[in-house]
Amino acid sequence: MKRKVAVLPGDGIGKEVMEGTMKVLSAVADRFGHTFEFHKGRIGGDAIDQDGMPLPDETLRICKESDAALLGAVGGPKWESLPGHLRPERGLLGIRKELGLFANLRPVTAFDSLLHASPLKPDRIKGVDMLIVRELTGGLYFGTPSERRNGGDEVVDTLHYTRSEIERIVEQGFEAASKRRQKLTSVDKANVLESSRMWREVVEEKAKAYPDVEVEHMLVDAAAMKMVQNPSHFDVIVTENLFGDILSDEASMITGSLGMLPSASLRSDGFGMYEPVHGSAPDIAGKNLANPLAMILSGAMMLKYSFEMHDEAEAIEKAVKEVLDAGYYTSDLANGSTKALGTDAMIKKVIYQ
Amino acid sequence: MKRKVAVLPGDGIGKEVMEGTMKVLSAVADRFGHTFEFHKGRIGGDAIDQDGMPLPDETLRICKESDAALLGAVGGPKWESLPGHLRPERGLLGIRKELGLFANLRPVTAFDSLLHASPLKPDRIKGVDMLIVRELTGGLYFGTPSERRNGGDEVVDTLHYTRSEIERIVEQGFEAASKRRQKLTSVDKANVLESSRMWREVVEEKAKAYPDVEVEHMLVDAAAMKMVQNPSHFDVIVTENLFGDILSDEASMITGSLGMLPSASLRSDGFGMYEPVHGSAPDIAGKNLANPLAMILSGAMMLKYSFEMHDEAEAIEKAVKEVLDAGYYTSDLANGSTKALGTDAMIKKVIYQ
Ligand SMILES: CC(C)[C@H](C(=O)O)[C@@H](O)C(=O)O
Ligand SMILES: CC(C)[C@H](C(=O)O)[C@@H](O)C(=O)O
Repeated sequence: MKRKVAVLPGDGIGKEVMEGTMKVLSAVADRFGHTFEFHKGRIGGDAIDQDGMPLPDETLRICKESDAALLGAVGGPKWESLPGHLRPERGLLGIRKELGLFANLRPVTAFDSLLHASPLKPDRIKGVDMLIVRELTGGLYFGTPSERRNGGDEVVDTLHYTRSEIERIVEQGFEAASKRRQKLTSVDKANVLESSRMWREVVEEKAKAYPDVEVEHMLVDAAAMKMVQNPSHFDVIVTENLFGDILSDEASMITGSLGMLPSASLRSDGFGMYEPVHGSAPDIAGKNLANPLAMILSGAMMLKYSFEMHDEAEAIEKAVKEVLDAGYYTSDLANGSTKALGTDAMIKKVIYQ
Repeated sequence: MKRKVAVLPGDGIGKEVMEGTMKVLSAVADRFGHTFEFHKGRIGGDAIDQDGMPLPDETLRICKESDAALLGAVGGPKWESLPGHLRPERGLLGIRKELGLFANLRPVTAFDSLLHASPLKPDRIKGVDMLIVRELTGGLYFGTPSERRNGGDEVVDTLHYTRSEIERIVEQGFEAASKRRQKLTSVDKANVLESSRMWREVVEEKAKAYPDVEVEHMLVDAAAMKMVQNPSHFDVIVTENLFGDILSDEASMITGSLGMLPSASLRSDGFGMYEPVHGSAPDIAGKNLANPLAMILSGAMMLKYSFEMHDEAEAIEKAVKEVLDAGYYTSDLANGSTKALGTDAMIKKVIYQ
């Protein structure tokens, strides 16, 4: 098969991990007889520097003409003092919104060979395999008004959802749960927020169509605690934008490093943008120190979710697991005990191990 | 000295842990020659059942005539299907707002003798001693509008702050940090929220008056991760209402149990309400299983913050530490390995050990 892939490396380590991922995908294409055509676009600080804005039209055009998109990471100190609408993050938030990528899927898996790298005790995380389904284009991230008032004496942000926005993400949660271990935890703050009470109602309604899925409601504070106390409790979590942001970063510690977490941002027609959960890590950028596995695993998610290439995706996931099982780690995972591989060496291991 | 204390046991285990705490405080009063006059009031489900509302005027009156208040916990399945304004939590939110208790202090300390009980590895939590300063009467909790729109097709909640609300809580953060290890982490989501950008500005302004305090800004998602990865990083955290709610529940896992965390809710004149961070735990209520230490330690905070009784507070804290060091635990901390004490036995240990 032939597929067009928009490639948006962005800033910092985004560039390095993207290079490696394109190599891994090309190796998979060779092996399985596919062609992936990569079309590069600029986003974030990279685009600010070259185009004067974080999300140029050209980048959106490339994405719209592609079958899926890969994104590295955006941001860095260089652009931090720019006014809000010109910051690198606006590029990321903008592309999610413009492309309608409302469903952010963040799988969190404890690799047996990485139990040492987690701050959590091995018995708590062994076997953890959860999927966080985060709403990505609504809530406090996009609600208006979001402004100063009374000459700067007051400020408001707005948590806004339409019922159909809640419905479609809750459906994604149920769909995912029904294909996994049939357990859905819906996270909200229904004892305080009206939006959470509506969220809970929608979950209850949708539950009727999935009688085999066990549904549970959990307050976000309790969920933040449970995530540390007993992460194996979770199969699929579905939650709104900001809660999903916080919980998925917290959950990353189960794997020992943010450098291990891939994500998919989907809409209903199969198009998706795939990116690591980590950021651009300016402190280690350009030093061949970045862990490329989150980006590589995001590539695997692209094969699975946008291209229906399940064997191909599994080949990548298997390669990653084998490299880790063989004791090869990047420095974020090495924990002092082993000699760490650089980014390039890790990529080679995944391709040729 | 003679002090009037409003005592609001509330629901579930709130009643049991409050009984014990009054005994501990009376023992302290005897030993140090004070008199504590306890005046009981109703709140939460207890008040719904007897007065038809979660926060009767009578309870507010008792608080206003007292020098400080102790609160147990509110809520339970019995009242969960009531309409929003009649739920037990409204009593809690109402009393915070009515009494103007804007500063919620949640200390998180790793007890050496409890390292086994935490899901985190001992080397990560040993020596952790942080204070979370949470804004308690603003933000998404109280902002309006908070409502359905378009016949239920849309919903909004409002994150609202005035500049002076931000200023006074940020000052509390700086004050606390300047009396501790001189490090303040301000947690926000400034890459998305306008309210967080204003929050950051206020922190920068106030920082000028505290040149000895090292200030750091951290995004809430990064903070949720750091809390697990390296909690010793933190001295004082200052943050808005909802972020503080989430982070403090997450942080509770450092101590091994929510049953260990006390809190103080203060205003500027010394009056405060003191309550455990845990809830009413209906599943174990009335079974003599609850850990009373969070409530007892909240009593110690009352002595320190509202009554300036520092030796007295330390006597309680020391007693708690000694009981734990001697290997006595309630079941939430026992981890299967030791025989657990019941609530009553634990209270006796703290008083007579
Ligand atoms: C960079 C930031 C705006 C973004 C978010 O909050 O969504 C990031 O934290 C993420 O989770 O992808
Ligand atoms: C019961 C609930 C409204 C409350 C809150 O969110 O403030 C609780 O979680 C707390 O932290 O005291």
